Amino acid sequence: VVKREVVQLITPGTVMEGRGLQDKENNFLATISYFDDEMYGFAYNDLTTGEGKATLISGNFDDVLNEVSILGAKEVVIDSKFDIELQKKLRDRNVMALSFEDSSSIDRSFSHLLEELHQEALKKTVSRLFHYLYRTQKRSLDHLQPIKMYEIQQFMKIDYFSKRNLELTETIRSKGKKGSLLWLLDETRTAMGGRQLKQWVERPLIDQKQIGHRHSLVELFIHHYFERQELREKLNEVYDLERLAGRVAFGNVNARDLIQLKKSLSQIPFLRQILLSLNSEVSNDLADRLDPCEAVTDLLENALVESPPISVKDGNMIRDGFNEELDRYRDASRNGKTWIAQLERMEREKTGIKSLKIGYNRVFGYYIEVTRANLHLLVEGQYERKQTLTNAERYITPELKEKETLILQAEEKSGELEYELFTQIREQVKEYIPQLQALAKAVSELDVLQCFAQVSEERHYVKPQFSKDRKIVIKDGRHPVVEKVLDSNEYVPNDCFMDNEREILLITGPNMSGKSTYMRQIALSSILAQIGCFVPATEATLPIFDQVFTRIGAADDLISGQSTFMVEMLEARNAIVNATKNSLILFDEIGRGTSTYDGMALAQAIIEYIHRKIGAKTLFSTHYHELTVLEDELLKVKNIHVSAIEHNGKVVFLHKIKEGAADKSYGIHVAELAELPKELIKRANELLNQFEQKQQLLEASNMT
Amino acid sequence: VVKREVVQLITPGTVMEGRGLQDKENNFLATISYFDDEMYGFAYNDLTTGEGKATLISGNFDDVLNEVSILGAKEVVIDSKFDIELQKKLRDRNVMALSFEDSSSIDRSFSHLLEELHQEALKKTVSRLFHYLYRTQKRSLDHLQPIKMYEIQQFMKIDYFSKRNLELTETIRSKGKKGSLLWLLDETRTAMGGRQLKQWVERPLIDQKQIGHRHSLVELFIHHYFERQELREKLNEVYDLERLAGRVAFGNVNARDLIQLKKSLSQIPFLRQILLSLNSEVSNDLADRLDPCEAVTDLLENALVESPPISVKDGNMIRDGFNEELDRYRDASRNGKTWIAQLERMEREKTGIKSLKIGYNRVFGYYIEVTRANLHLLVEGQYERKQTLTNAERYITPELKEKETLILQAEEKSGELEYELFTQIREQVKEYIPQLQALAKAVSELDVLQCFAQVSEERHYVKPQFSKDRKIVIKDGRHPVVEKVLDSNEYVPNDCFMDNEREILLITGPNMSGKSTYMRQIALSSILAQIGCFVPATEATLPIFDQVFTRIGAADDLISGQSTFMVEMLEARNAIVNATKNSLILFDEIGRGTSTYDGMALAQAIIEYIHRKIGAKTLFSTHYHELTVLEDELLKVKNIHVSAIEHNGKVVFLHKIKEGAADKSYGIHVAELAELPKELIKRANELLNQFEQKQQLLEASNMT
Repeated sequence: VVKREVVQLITPGTVMEGRGLQDKENNFLATISYFDDEMYGFAYNDLTTGEGKATLISGNFDDVLNEVSILGAKEVVIDSKFDIELQKKLRDRNVMALSFEDSSSIDRSFSHLLEELHQEALKKTVSRLFHYLYRTQKRSLDHLQPIKMYEIQQFMKIDYFSKRNLELTETIRSKGKKGSLLWLLDETRTAMGGRQLKQWVERPLIDQKQIGHRHSLVELFIHHYFERQELREKLNEVYDLERLAGRVAFGNVNARDLIQLKKSLSQIPFLRQILLSLNSEVSNDLADRLDPCEAVTDLLENALVESPPISVKDGNMIRDGFNEELDRYRDASRNGKTWIAQLERMEREKTGIKSLKIGYNRVFGYYIEVTRANLHLLVEGQYERKQTLTNAERYITPELKEKETLILQAEEKSGELEYELFTQIREQVKEYIPQLQALAKAVSELDVLQCFAQVSEERHYVKPQFSKDRKIVIKDGRHPVVEKVLDSNEYVPNDCFMDNEREILLITGPNMSGKSTYMRQIALSSILAQIGCFVPATEATLPIFDQVFTRIGAADDLISGQSTFMVEMLEARNAIVNATKNSLILFDEIGRGTSTYDGMALAQAIIEYIHRKIGAKTLFSTHYHELTVLEDELLKVKNIHVSAIEHNGKVVFLHKIKEGAADKSYGIHVAELAELPKELIKRANELLNQFEQKQQLLEASNMT
Repeated sequence: VVKREVVQLITPGTVMEGRGLQDKENNFLATISYFDDEMYGFAYNDLTTGEGKATLISGNFDDVLNEVSILGAKEVVIDSKFDIELQKKLRDRNVMALSFEDSSSIDRSFSHLLEELHQEALKKTVSRLFHYLYRTQKRSLDHLQPIKMYEIQQFMKIDYFSKRNLELTETIRSKGKKGSLLWLLDETRTAMGGRQLKQWVERPLIDQKQIGHRHSLVELFIHHYFERQELREKLNEVYDLERLAGRVAFGNVNARDLIQLKKSLSQIPFLRQILLSLNSEVSNDLADRLDPCEAVTDLLENALVESPPISVKDGNMIRDGFNEELDRYRDASRNGKTWIAQLERMEREKTGIKSLKIGYNRVFGYYIEVTRANLHLLVEGQYERKQTLTNAERYITPELKEKETLILQAEEKSGELEYELFTQIREQVKEYIPQLQALAKAVSELDVLQCFAQVSEERHYVKPQFSKDRKIVIKDGRHPVVEKVLDSNEYVPNDCFMDNEREILLITGPNMSGKSTYMRQIALSSILAQIGCFVPATEATLPIFDQVFTRIGAADDLISGQSTFMVEMLEARNAIVNATKNSLILFDEIGRGTSTYDGMALAQAIIEYIHRKIGAKTLFSTHYHELTVLEDELLKVKNIHVSAIEHNGKVVFLHKIKEGAADKSYGIHVAELAELPKELIKRANELLNQFEQKQQLLEASNMT
């Protein structure tokens, strides 16, 4: 009876290879600890790359949920006594598995990974994660990087709803990457770069110096077209160093993986050289971080052949000359084979049978084969008959069998030795994991920055300026994704101007005209600016926003039981409660989900509240024409509208934003475009006229 | 140089196995031909099951698109000159591949499959499909079933939008099966049944006799609980006969597949017996269609062992006694092995070495192994040394080698012979493919009907009556999916009554209250009734609807460039142009997408149009309170509303439908529930009061 032990538990958050893993996406395992003083510890780790971070979040579990969503963590490790209600909330955020780990003691085996953390709560939070990892993985986790501390306040905050509404990393409709901002941006050349890009898109910066540093490099790359193309070509040859390092630590790399590692490392000197040739401080700094790890390259170059097989047990991995003992076995085997080739030649000469050949098969080993027609040419007694075929006989001789034994034994031993040598090489590479990880980090940053340059140049983006006095000046701004999908000559760019006198823009206009697109493009431009990319405009000055809030139409969720209007109000509340003077709010048709008058009342109350209490930059689109009078009542509210013209009795949307309120409504025209029956359209026009006359009479009667 | 030829092209529509294939979904390959007289030929085939159908569609390409959508066809075969605009429309419907085939001549090789088709256009349409199949598959397609003719008018028509809105087979949000009507219903036990269920859900019937036939069987199964459970157990053991048949024809079955086939067939007599025991005409008819194909069972029983290996080249598939020659080889090999076992015993006795053993390895074949300590006990000269291990020596003797050759040769030959025999068996099974396919059809129908019975009993559904005078009477109706997801004590059932005096119900009420759920439940109950299932209610009388149209809130599609309102109008147009007196229309908040007055004008014009021109049963929900006056103006329009009560100053939704218009608006209350700031709510209430006072003054001034 063989005793079987569990050697590894593979969970959604600890998948190391195979179908569950996307090249350009991290696979984060997260953990949450609750501490007495209304504080949550949050930490995460990607087992494939070894990267991990931790933070403390005060009071608000929504902020914790937000972190889980940003990471797209599929598994969260918690204490088995973790609050049931909060567990349910986690499950609602697409967490596939909640796993339990009760120990959060700081163990010596991983204390070196906690050195950058100073608070006890942080250390405990991370310890729970490590206890869980060691318990499930039961093996070397040498590639784990020291956990870094971060604070959610260091980044622009974009809540779950807004991230979804703005389609930053996936579209609302298909939940796929295609059509998202990430999809538009992804000109990265390496898998690591792809993951870094996603992380940056999820967490725009708010520190002007950090943003400026990225912009400088992007600008530099834009101005050096040929160098950039060269960088891109070289990056193409760099494999996933981060995950290779992880697999080295895990012990599941083969010789081909190590050859990939070597090839990747051999690109690094070229990358350095190109960066240095740009002769700028920022690129020199980046070049300095590109350590080619020559010791690893040399080792692998000397040890491994160029095209080793997939299996590590079949030999043919190690170069001749690397190991004396191995060379001896190989000589023996090769000599044996040469001897057999010579024997074939000799036997042909001796017997005069030109078709005589020496073959090998599994059952009989090496044999001499002679066709039936030539049998009479063989000298009797020298050959032992082993097998009869239709047209030939097969023979062996004692010398042949002797050499055969020699060859087979040498092959067996050299295979074993190669495996042993390979294991040693792998262990040596393991020593360099920290350097490889630092290198991977630098390469991925380089990759994302060249990607920003590539997209910015191709799509004619401009370097944004940052305004200290919260001013927005966008000339010829575009929605980056819609612009890409439409033909460029179909797309109508739009300006945006907001300052201390124009805090809230009230947008009216028909529904097909692109109000939401306009609102979204302002938010996306700010996000692009703050992740370090250029923005789709000919001129752009922007504040640095601390938060972005959106309430933009979403689909009913029949099953979850929350109606559109409740979701609408929850999203509105989230913005109103958390926004500051430095935030950006997009409200699309707030109040539409209920009946006319109380919807209108709510919309107006919300505008007044933002105007008086918050002062955040706000774009508010509405169908309630009645609200446009607010421009006269509230100082910082301005009306803008989307223009349309009538042409041959049909309506043409110009998708152009203009000052002032829209002066007509176009619903019936859209109905006409959709070819509803003519008499129905005629009747609707009659009714509209009646309604409008009534309203005019009402206003004339001076009751407004 | 080996000459390589293309042996098969695998395209999205011709995948036979692997990841692209779902057990419970057909993989349809479709084809469209255009004929001069504004007519389209449409045909499809599932290569895995051999099933195929064809129809002619006049004039309207939307109907063709609808068929493509219903089938979920991933690949469509067309003439290379097929209209470019129409090709684009096909691509927009998630067709992954458009493949070109210019030949549509009727070939003798497949003319037998066209026998049931009488129109030339149909034959040509199908021929294009077959030309494409033979060209790409390059092999036997013996399992293709004769193409059956159908007409789209034979089924309830549910357009693409409505199918999506009602979430018949997938949800809007996740595009997955979970949460759809299909998900709720799927209590099928076989993969074939699962596919049949999906087909039925996609195509409800309109022939009362056919529907009645299904209802009778469902009722019978409901009344025979134990027999039903037995049927389910037996069905559990039935594998995918349809796809097995396809793979037999394709020549890619192994012995395990054939054992699955045998096991499945052995369940059929039990299924028959249970059906016959129910002693009813409908079940007897179904029993008659269950042909156990005994010849196949007998053949497979005699020929194959119970647990054959996966590979068909390694032998061990064929039973002893099935083939004399095979038995002889096996004897030889077994005798050889017995001889070796005896030799081991003899050698032990002869030498007195108890640890002496005979082993086998790849390099040296059979050998005698003696531990170093016992070497002195061997008689010199009788054993030839072959290999030296650390603690033992291995020897051979001439007799051992002789027997070895015998054993190995016998094994080689018997492996070859087994493969040959297996191929013959497979060819014999091929002869029975038509019977197997007919059986599969009957089994899948049985499976779906027991599934309907199972769901109807578990969830307390009732057998619907059909009304000749277009009356709807539903008592305690429920939305089947929402009811399943919610706890049953949370769910509030609702009645519905409509007749010639009540053609249009205008539904007002707050947004969280479940207006859309109510509307959907009427449509879903009708669909359930017409596919032959019972319906979620305590009493149900329904018309047989020819078509169902819905316009229910959907997500904006940013990329496709169609705004919500345009989509809304297109869907509305589709209903208005195509609906008849016998149709069901659900309109949810039509007009909401544009500004107040023209939205209201459009909504009213649409209601008037349906009232005067169409007369279809219509459920129309709206936020425009102003429309409730239509009850007084239009004879067949009635107001209903969703009730709510106020409790401790908060609003409580009762989800209960009542007669008359809603008397208050609850948007602000929802905002309160969502915890918007108190002062904001207070202000909104003030504003609402102002608006309402103005309105009342206006009405008082007699301008209404």
